[in-house]
Amino acid sequence: MKTAIASSRPKVVIVGGGFGGLYAAKALANQALDVTLIDRTNHHLFQPLLYQVATAGLSPGDVAQPIRHILRSAQNIKVIMGTVGKIDVEARTVITHIREHPYDYLVVAAGARHSYFGNDDWEAFAPGLKNIPDALELRRRILNAFEIAETTTDEELRKAALTFVIIGGGPTGVEMAGAISELARRTLVDDFREIRTKQAKVILLDAAPRVLPVFTEDLSRSAQKQLEQMDVDVRVAKKVLTVNADGVQLEDEFIKTRTIIWAAGNAASPLGKQLGVETDRQGRVVVTQDLSIPGHPEIFIIGDLASYSHQTGKPLAGVASVAMQMGTYTGKAILARIGGNQLAPFKYLDRGSMATIGRHRAVADFHIIRFGGFFAWLGWLWVHLIFLVGLRNQIQVFFQWVWAYFTYARGARLIYRNFQPSVPPKKPRIPSEDLTG
Amino acid sequence: MKTAIASSRPKVVIVGGGFGGLYAAKALANQALDVTLIDRTNHHLFQPLLYQVATAGLSPGDVAQPIRHILRSAQNIKVIMGTVGKIDVEARTVITHIREHPYDYLVVAAGARHSYFGNDDWEAFAPGLKNIPDALELRRRILNAFEIAETTTDEELRKAALTFVIIGGGPTGVEMAGAISELARRTLVDDFREIRTKQAKVILLDAAPRVLPVFTEDLSRSAQKQLEQMDVDVRVAKKVLTVNADGVQLEDEFIKTRTIIWAAGNAASPLGKQLGVETDRQGRVVVTQDLSIPGHPEIFIIGDLASYSHQTGKPLAGVASVAMQMGTYTGKAILARIGGNQLAPFKYLDRGSMATIGRHRAVADFHIIRFGGFFAWLGWLWVHLIFLVGLRNQIQVFFQWVWAYFTYARGARLIYRNFQPSVPPKKPRIPSEDLTG
Repeated sequence: MKTAIASSRPKVVIVGGGFGGLYAAKALANQALDVTLIDRTNHHLFQPLLYQVATAGLSPGDVAQPIRHILRSAQNIKVIMGTVGKIDVEARTVITHIREHPYDYLVVAAGARHSYFGNDDWEAFAPGLKNIPDALELRRRILNAFEIAETTTDEELRKAALTFVIIGGGPTGVEMAGAISELARRTLVDDFREIRTKQAKVILLDAAPRVLPVFTEDLSRSAQKQLEQMDVDVRVAKKVLTVNADGVQLEDEFIKTRTIIWAAGNAASPLGKQLGVETDRQGRVVVTQDLSIPGHPEIFIIGDLASYSHQTGKPLAGVASVAMQMGTYTGKAILARIGGNQLAPFKYLDRGSMATIGRHRAVADFHIIRFGGFFAWLGWLWVHLIFLVGLRNQIQVFFQWVWAYFTYARGARLIYRNFQPSVPPKKPRIPSEDLTG
Repeated sequence: MKTAIASSRPKVVIVGGGFGGLYAAKALANQALDVTLIDRTNHHLFQPLLYQVATAGLSPGDVAQPIRHILRSAQNIKVIMGTVGKIDVEARTVITHIREHPYDYLVVAAGARHSYFGNDDWEAFAPGLKNIPDALELRRRILNAFEIAETTTDEELRKAALTFVIIGGGPTGVEMAGAISELARRTLVDDFREIRTKQAKVILLDAAPRVLPVFTEDLSRSAQKQLEQMDVDVRVAKKVLTVNADGVQLEDEFIKTRTIIWAAGNAASPLGKQLGVETDRQGRVVVTQDLSIPGHPEIFIIGDLASYSHQTGKPLAGVASVAMQMGTYTGKAILARIGGNQLAPFKYLDRGSMATIGRHRAVADFHIIRFGGFFAWLGWLWVHLIFLVGLRNQIQVFFQWVWAYFTYARGARLIYRNFQPSVPPKKPRIPSEDLTG
């Protein structure tokens, strides 16, 4: 075992290895301080491509890398896989399930989960998409729906199995709707015998009057048109009253479906509330101009957990580029403080936004220029490839995209968890004992 | 929905989509009969590379392909994902959880699981490696052991976490031992701060007096030497008395470990026993010279479920090449029968055997020539690449092998299931509530 060296260097603890935490760690790499990064998993996840794992285009290993591997050359950074139970702001220590981690500076980048606006029981019927187990569960449900449709003798069930409902018309919802439509209308067409997968219905619901509400109205219209060209049934201004095992209840209709995907709301990590400072409606911590919290200049909150309104009057969006810039800023701010200086307030440099819809289809808003379609799609591919961590993953993803472009095939169409017949068979003939071997 | 065409063509049902079932289906593709292939999962798994999934080198999608995709151009073949509950040999029908599938010819290729020789409670402590969930569970345990060693403050636990025990010195055991040793001594060395992963102990146990007992004594010795060069502690003629959460009890020693891998025994699918004919000690069905069963010439048993001794006096080994040849033979036998002919008895063409141990290390026995080392390793890579199903998977695996060859990196080092501290913390300080976000 290596010998522990007692150090009097400043101690930084970073909670979370997403974009915020990782970029903070990188800004502190090989500096004269000791950094501990704690994450619940062992990997940094490139969340913008997670929907491609959920739709069988990529494998989890393509969009995730061990955090300790990314930071291996930073000798001053220790990575801990562990669960943070409590932050003791008075004692200046973070408590995990194993030990305490005292800090001089704390960076909390614990992110967000999806929120069901108080209807937590909906999650079982309409899972969301935040981490790898989420993506694998959605993949299983989507692929399994086609299997159910192929094997069942019940026409009603077959129709429900071939109906996919996505709730929420933000980027994730739009991406999922486009990808499921491509799966049904391209990838799977030759593989089934009893069903025509092209007849699958993909319905995208949003309570707002347009999809992609963070984009301009022009681009929202463009996105909706592109979705409709892909046979996605876009229904805006539709309020979901409830969801259950049979489908989705709208104000004027009940949609029977076996697959509901939740892409509608976020709630910040409960760690934020623990700090005893103001949080906004989504549970995000209201931060000062340097991303710290009132009364505790040594605590920085960044990424999806931060509510930063000093720049535009409303909180910055919970997107990767905000988290990355906040992470880098925080690292620099800590180094400046140690050097006895103070950084100018955080300022987000908004280079624009993009959302992909499907093959040749996307929207892009670079402020000076806004466009949809083929070139937006190319731009989206390029940006996502260059920001993906690790050359190996970049090559792998690029190869799979090129392959899928020419063949429409998707490389990770696997259902491997024990097959649970989601409905009891009409005439149960045998005990459900499993004897296949 | 497509219209079902009532058919008077002969009906073939194949149970299982492994090597045996798949090759039988391929032999029957686009012939004048209707084939239904039933598998519990939706994919054909290339089991010889599964150990690389378990050791984070490959992703599940690299070694598996949807069965219906492989067979998509065979219009006479229907693929069903379902669980076979019962085979009614009198009524000539296979009963799944959804419906009955009547047959004129039946091919049972349901394979084998690992066997604990009556100690089924050992499975929780020493999982085996037969399918993708098995591989992902082993991957989680192996990677998690290093994480536990890095975070714990308990020196005893750290030692146990850095000890890996593989029970069974057949090809799977040898491959796992070599791969874990490479992981510890190459891949992970720069990534940890508290532990030196090189100090990990990898112990390979077998009750027999030598590893790879199906090979010649020369090659067994070569394999053991190559393993020892990789710092694997090979202990033969060691009987395992029991395994539990703390480790492995041998006759003369207790090995404390957190990770035990079971590669010691197989038991055929329980479907075999259901047929009411003779089975051998491993539960394999004793088949006639044309792979059918006595009294039921319309039922063929192939692959790991078959016990075929007519060629050498002892049952053929449960390896991929035997299953492939049996599958192809069975397909031809069915076609011959329908045409009013009878095929000559099945004869296995044994082209030789290979087992890999690690980088530049393997053994090969091609009967006319036997060798170990670099060229055996190259041969192993080549054969496994060409037999892998799907050009896309071949390219992907080839790229990852080349990448790993030069960098030692492994692309799927992911722990994503909820982190369960495998031992209670020494001083529980907080409720175990999970607040990381």
